[in-house]
Amino acid sequence: MSDIDNLAISTIRLLAVDQVAAANSGHPGAPLGLAQVAHIIFKNMIQNPASPDWLNKDRFVLSNGHSVALLYSLLHLAGYPLSIEDLKQFRHINSKTPGHPEAETPGIDVTTGPLGQGICNAVGLALAQEHIAARFNKPGFEISNNYTYCILGDGCMMEGVASEACSLAGHLKLSKLIAFYDDNHISIDGDTNVAFTEDVNKRYEAYGWEVLWVKDGMHDYEGITKAIEQAKKSDKPTLIRVTTIIGYGSKMQGTHSVHGAPLKADDIVQLKTHLGFDPSKSFVVPEEVYSYYKSFADSGAAAEAKWSAMLKEYSSQYPELGAELKRRIAGELPADLESILPTFTAADKAVATRKLSEGVISKLYDAVPELIGGSADLTGSNLTRAPDAVDFQPPSTGLGDYSGRYIRFGVREHGMAAICNGISAYGANFISFGATFMNFVSYAVGAVRLSALSGHHVLYVATHDSIGLGEDGPTHQPIETLTHLRSIPNLSVWRPADGNETSAAYLVALKNKHTPSVLAFSRQNLPQLAGSSIAKASKGGYVVHGSEAPVAAVVATGSEVGIAVEAAELLAKEGVNINVISLPDWFTFDAQPKDYKLSIFPDGLPVMSFEVLSTNGWSKYAHEHFGLDRFGISGKGPDVYKYFEFTGEGVAKRVKKVVDFYKGTEVKSRLNTAL
Amino acid sequence: MSDIDNLAISTIRLLAVDQVAAANSGHPGAPLGLAQVAHIIFKNMIQNPASPDWLNKDRFVLSNGHSVALLYSLLHLAGYPLSIEDLKQFRHINSKTPGHPEAETPGIDVTTGPLGQGICNAVGLALAQEHIAARFNKPGFEISNNYTYCILGDGCMMEGVASEACSLAGHLKLSKLIAFYDDNHISIDGDTNVAFTEDVNKRYEAYGWEVLWVKDGMHDYEGITKAIEQAKKSDKPTLIRVTTIIGYGSKMQGTHSVHGAPLKADDIVQLKTHLGFDPSKSFVVPEEVYSYYKSFADSGAAAEAKWSAMLKEYSSQYPELGAELKRRIAGELPADLESILPTFTAADKAVATRKLSEGVISKLYDAVPELIGGSADLTGSNLTRAPDAVDFQPPSTGLGDYSGRYIRFGVREHGMAAICNGISAYGANFISFGATFMNFVSYAVGAVRLSALSGHHVLYVATHDSIGLGEDGPTHQPIETLTHLRSIPNLSVWRPADGNETSAAYLVALKNKHTPSVLAFSRQNLPQLAGSSIAKASKGGYVVHGSEAPVAAVVATGSEVGIAVEAAELLAKEGVNINVISLPDWFTFDAQPKDYKLSIFPDGLPVMSFEVLSTNGWSKYAHEHFGLDRFGISGKGPDVYKYFEFTGEGVAKRVKKVVDFYKGTEVKSRLNTAL
Repeated sequence: MSDIDNLAISTIRLLAVDQVAAANSGHPGAPLGLAQVAHIIFKNMIQNPASPDWLNKDRFVLSNGHSVALLYSLLHLAGYPLSIEDLKQFRHINSKTPGHPEAETPGIDVTTGPLGQGICNAVGLALAQEHIAARFNKPGFEISNNYTYCILGDGCMMEGVASEACSLAGHLKLSKLIAFYDDNHISIDGDTNVAFTEDVNKRYEAYGWEVLWVKDGMHDYEGITKAIEQAKKSDKPTLIRVTTIIGYGSKMQGTHSVHGAPLKADDIVQLKTHLGFDPSKSFVVPEEVYSYYKSFADSGAAAEAKWSAMLKEYSSQYPELGAELKRRIAGELPADLESILPTFTAADKAVATRKLSEGVISKLYDAVPELIGGSADLTGSNLTRAPDAVDFQPPSTGLGDYSGRYIRFGVREHGMAAICNGISAYGANFISFGATFMNFVSYAVGAVRLSALSGHHVLYVATHDSIGLGEDGPTHQPIETLTHLRSIPNLSVWRPADGNETSAAYLVALKNKHTPSVLAFSRQNLPQLAGSSIAKASKGGYVVHGSEAPVAAVVATGSEVGIAVEAAELLAKEGVNINVISLPDWFTFDAQPKDYKLSIFPDGLPVMSFEVLSTNGWSKYAHEHFGLDRFGISGKGPDVYKYFEFTGEGVAKRVKKVVDFYKGTEVKSRLNTAL
Repeated sequence: MSDIDNLAISTIRLLAVDQVAAANSGHPGAPLGLAQVAHIIFKNMIQNPASPDWLNKDRFVLSNGHSVALLYSLLHLAGYPLSIEDLKQFRHINSKTPGHPEAETPGIDVTTGPLGQGICNAVGLALAQEHIAARFNKPGFEISNNYTYCILGDGCMMEGVASEACSLAGHLKLSKLIAFYDDNHISIDGDTNVAFTEDVNKRYEAYGWEVLWVKDGMHDYEGITKAIEQAKKSDKPTLIRVTTIIGYGSKMQGTHSVHGAPLKADDIVQLKTHLGFDPSKSFVVPEEVYSYYKSFADSGAAAEAKWSAMLKEYSSQYPELGAELKRRIAGELPADLESILPTFTAADKAVATRKLSEGVISKLYDAVPELIGGSADLTGSNLTRAPDAVDFQPPSTGLGDYSGRYIRFGVREHGMAAICNGISAYGANFISFGATFMNFVSYAVGAVRLSALSGHHVLYVATHDSIGLGEDGPTHQPIETLTHLRSIPNLSVWRPADGNETSAAYLVALKNKHTPSVLAFSRQNLPQLAGSSIAKASKGGYVVHGSEAPVAAVVATGSEVGIAVEAAELLAKEGVNINVISLPDWFTFDAQPKDYKLSIFPDGLPVMSFEVLSTNGWSKYAHEHFGLDRFGISGKGPDVYKYFEFTGEGVAKRVKKVVDFYKGTEVKSRLNTAL
């Protein structure tokens, strides 16, 4: 490495230290220990800061997101629109430099911070790249060949979600994934030897990774560079373990005290002095460092220009693939999706919504080539595999190839969701999906939450969505899950009642480019409703069964809507007229105009919610509740429903109580509020 | 192995097959492949089926809980109160034989089924045993020396939660843990080679486990037996990989089709015939098999009798320890806990509730020796370590010993929670606790849910409980978490507002022996309230600031209560009198008599909820809401609060709107309902 490299590395270190000092909050330790690693990665990366959305750029994920001051320093030098002023606003409200990397900031490929997630996102990014290459590359046209770089720390290494994704990455032989393990022996509780003494190299070898080790990570720049070269030659993902010293150069280096608190003023002075910088100045970038980084940006811009020219030629030689790629880069869905979605009438037979979902997926599979995903080892139960799907597998397995779009995630729900986030983050209009039983979406919520926060276009197919699953019993029957998911901002949570609602759920979910969706489906058969349609359900809520002068309404979702209609019919025979409201997605319904919402839930109409899960949250729409605020029970599905009186009769009985209770009182719609 | 062993193994196989056939639902594959392993384990186990709560019995965890028919067969033979009639009721409503193992059934040590959890529970059970041994064993008095056996399958192996706990178990050198890996190469998606091709042996060696491999697991009974002997000699936890054939003996053996569906009638006939049983009969147990198993039970009873006699002698030689052990076995808390809890007045200074929690833990640490736990690498932030705590560590590390009660879990939230469940399941009145940031309780909810379902006595200390944590930003700021946790049945979810409420939260949580608790604490300082007391807060909700003839009420929790009181004072100056209700725990409040609840939330009083998290769920108590139905923002905590107008002025402004809106209307208490 030359003097200019050393100067750049010092600059990066001090920019990070200055950010943390200015904010009086943050993590200086990892940036000081990792600046040389990050600098060498950025030297190797092909990217064009003027064009952060370029499909074939190398990706970078900072899985130990708390060391974000390091990343901001690099993005500034690299030429992304992140000024010194922005760095000075580090961790201030409404700045472009929040306390952890957020993908809104140009140049940040994924939002990270929650430990373990970033490396899984990197697995997803690398998976997406392999797929794009397999689908589009042709002799002489290497449309896709980018690398995915990632830095992760001890915290990420300990998280199970990372174990899941890295085991799968090894199986999938994602050879363009290059991860750097910041082996600094320090976590928040002090020396990692209090809790983390496993042999990490051996574990990653067990996963099928190439493992390299740079033992003097603070000084052996050549070793780091050579490791990257070696990684690029491997046919496996590579873990480059770099043994570093946290807070390198600080008086407190190598200790926990430098992890998450600003350096003291005198420590900064000695550090700057030692590095040959003026200790009285902050946020200093020598001009030659700017020039040096400018040369990387120039190479990146040239590479993109060459790629764009190639794409033009490609499009004329392969017009169909070229058109698809252009459409996807533009972020447009295939035209006319509505027309391919199945519709149903009440004459059609009762079918489980998971089966109806399979029907929709089968239609979408060919029509939407950006749809890619699979199940956490529940394919035959989730019914997520289109009949003509090809598995995404290393060709050497003989089980599929990288052009395949069905992913066998294994029993790894959390890793699956985090990988789906990474696939979505790749661009190319990817819509990723992951499936499991609804109860086990809970295993994955650490990543589902990040889908919502980042606006990743991910679909979570959650079958076996209630006690209706029957014999597997309370360990498998969700109770709290829907309420939980409905409380996550920017998350659409569908629970369709029949075929038309299932089609509507997919349609809205596909169109919601920046909102992930959970699609909850029944194990058991459900009748096709007379009152449903794709158009009505696409509003998130509607009256599926109306009456003249109703005295009450039942609002229900999914498997309970049909039972509510049955109750309405029973009650009608007794002269009690009620409406049944189907509310398959709160998120979509809440976005409707207030007039529409009040037309469904008008003043004067007492409403009872009916959903065989937790009633928590339903008071938002309903005055009374019939649900399940306890754990379920093992037994045949219909027996379990009967046991809790979740039947037409059970509903009718309660509606009558509700009608009596509110008779003669002023009933205000729950949606008629002051705030 | 003798003929009788073979006969017993065949009996176990057929009992399992008959259960699944009778239920027409369930998993015959694993029982057929594992009967020989389970039989040999049960032969080795020291247990007394007449006394399932004996402290020093060997424990058994079926982590692949779906193969529960195997376990029921064994428990029946072993002499637990589980009759042939019970087996015939497999997977029927209200039977003692639900679809997955539930700890209510005598002889079942932990509820399992959700994959990966059982092996972590086993780690917790083994950890608890090491602690009991270190605390109570004396020369000549081996009070504790039991083994923990576990069977886990490929599904458990893939789950990240198992990776976390097993890595920690290796670090902790839990040498009395003996786990059998059912290596049958089949999961629901078919051959495990579609997703799971890592080198499991190498991975567990990397964790610091002893790894043994019985390659012909279907026939090499001696190999299995010897492996157990070798495991007992190891100073590490042991993984015995047993390569088996799923559905062994079925015509479909070795395929996925035998995993989760009953065998066909003709297949059962050929299997019974082949095993020398009458194919026309079901649920057959040869008398000699009963006698054989009776001999194990007799040895177990004798062992317990000997142990009880030893305990008597021990109690006279070590009266204090003896008394403690007796008290703990009786499930009684130490007397007079109330008196040691800190109390506060409004004159005391503002303190973060996490700091107040530290004060309580410091008091409880010596007083409650059954309290054991730690943090997921956030000790200095969660403040969960009593000043005089000793770390639970293998003595060889020099960092603590097994008598220590502070556990360094590492960055392993999910594993931590599942281990805490195992510790609680051990008995001895253990109260385990695990700490992390509230947002990362979401990583652990797969296990938190099982704490609630099983009624484990676990405390989850969840600090940094809102946007008040500030700079770390939206990736770390919980929004949906409280609503989620409040929707889990049998889970107490405390968010104390000050010191008295913090003491109350711990007091109630300690007394709730069969209800786990989440304790949410602030990062930021909160004032001590004039209106709080341990007694009042122990009801879960109360009027913390009352007014004459209030025109509205604000109901708040935690850090928002003080702000609400500030708003009330501002409003009082304008002649608007309101009540402030503190509702630190919905679960506890909901259990109060209806009269009491209506006295807090009376008819006629419009109520606005105020909590800086999702408003979802608050309609249960409040007509209007002031909360945060979007993700947070990075900035200094007070700036973030101001940004969203979460201030006295912001609250007051909205209360006035609420008062205007409801003026002259009939306002019904949200708790005054028909159902």
